Amino acid sequence: MIGSTIENLLLENQSDFLISADKVAHVMDTNPLTHALLVLSKVRYSKIPVLNAQDELVGFIGLTNIVDEMFDLDEVEPNNLNDKKVADVMDVDITFINNTSDVERLFHLAVDHPFIPVSDENNKFMGIVTRKELLKAVNHLMHTLGNDYDLKPKKVEIRKFG
Amino acid sequence: MIGSTIENLLLENQSDFLISADKVAHVMDTNPLTHALLVLSKVRYSKIPVLNAQDELVGFIGLTNIVDEMFDLDEVEPNNLNDKKVADVMDVDITFINNTSDVERLFHLAVDHPFIPVSDENNKFMGIVTRKELLKAVNHLMHTLGNDYDLKPKKVEIRKFG
Repeated sequence: MIGSTIENLLLENQSDFLISADKVAHVMDTNPLTHALLVLSKVRYSKIPVLNAQDELVGFIGLTNIVDEMFDLDEVEPNNLNDKKVADVMDVDITFINNTSDVERLFHLAVDHPFIPVSDENNKFMGIVTRKELLKAVNHLMHTLGNDYDLKPKKVEIRKFG
Repeated sequence: MIGSTIENLLLENQSDFLISADKVAHVMDTNPLTHALLVLSKVRYSKIPVLNAQDELVGFIGLTNIVDEMFDLDEVEPNNLNDKKVADVMDVDITFINNTSDVERLFHLAVDHPFIPVSDENNKFMGIVTRKELLKAVNHLMHTLGNDYDLKPKKVEIRKFG
């Protein structure tokens, strides 16, 4: 339990941590791999979301997935990308959340995920929560607690039985 | 100021946040680009440190740097990598720290840097601090404060003049 004081301080400078879908670079599952390669080399993120025609999150793709596909043993062969689609090489192991106000779960997931995708109850992709935004809030939390709060260990209650 | 209670709780489970150099994948500035491509596609990190023969950090390289170099307008041309070295395409804009015990600066830098390189006073590369390790410590901090501490806003002192 992280407690309401901490939750309130984390969210003091923003309504939530969401970066909305219209601001997040993505590709479609039916896009040619060569298109994804262009997008990824332009945006310079290591991994971006893949959506289907219903705006549902169906995977992630990064340069690693595409470079892997180009390798013939130790040689790079760009023709390997011809006729391949994003869906053929994307990672489909997805962890997402429906509720950005579950701060405890967000911070727990952020340990292993550079960003956490958010979907609504109909599975529509709503955006992402990034480690960067969470760390901004952590800096604010730690400074406010350090400057404006007294932090006292709770007294340990010793119970005697019998 | 983040305060000693918070600093002590952040470091309760570890002596510092450093992942030592021998555990960090890296390439040398004189390595051929094709070698860096192999290393990066194997380790699956988006960016790794580049060291020189004196074990000094001289840059970073990621798949993006290498893919950029392969592009001829819209076509991928792997022969563009021939005879190129890591030093020719690496990012040389480096932010590093000498002192992992400056927790305040670490968390400040982590907002904009997925990992923070650490060098000793002779410029020798010592390792990195990652957002993952910092976020682990944040989770511990928030749970301990939430469960075991009383958080009370300090009384605001109202001074009357005159």
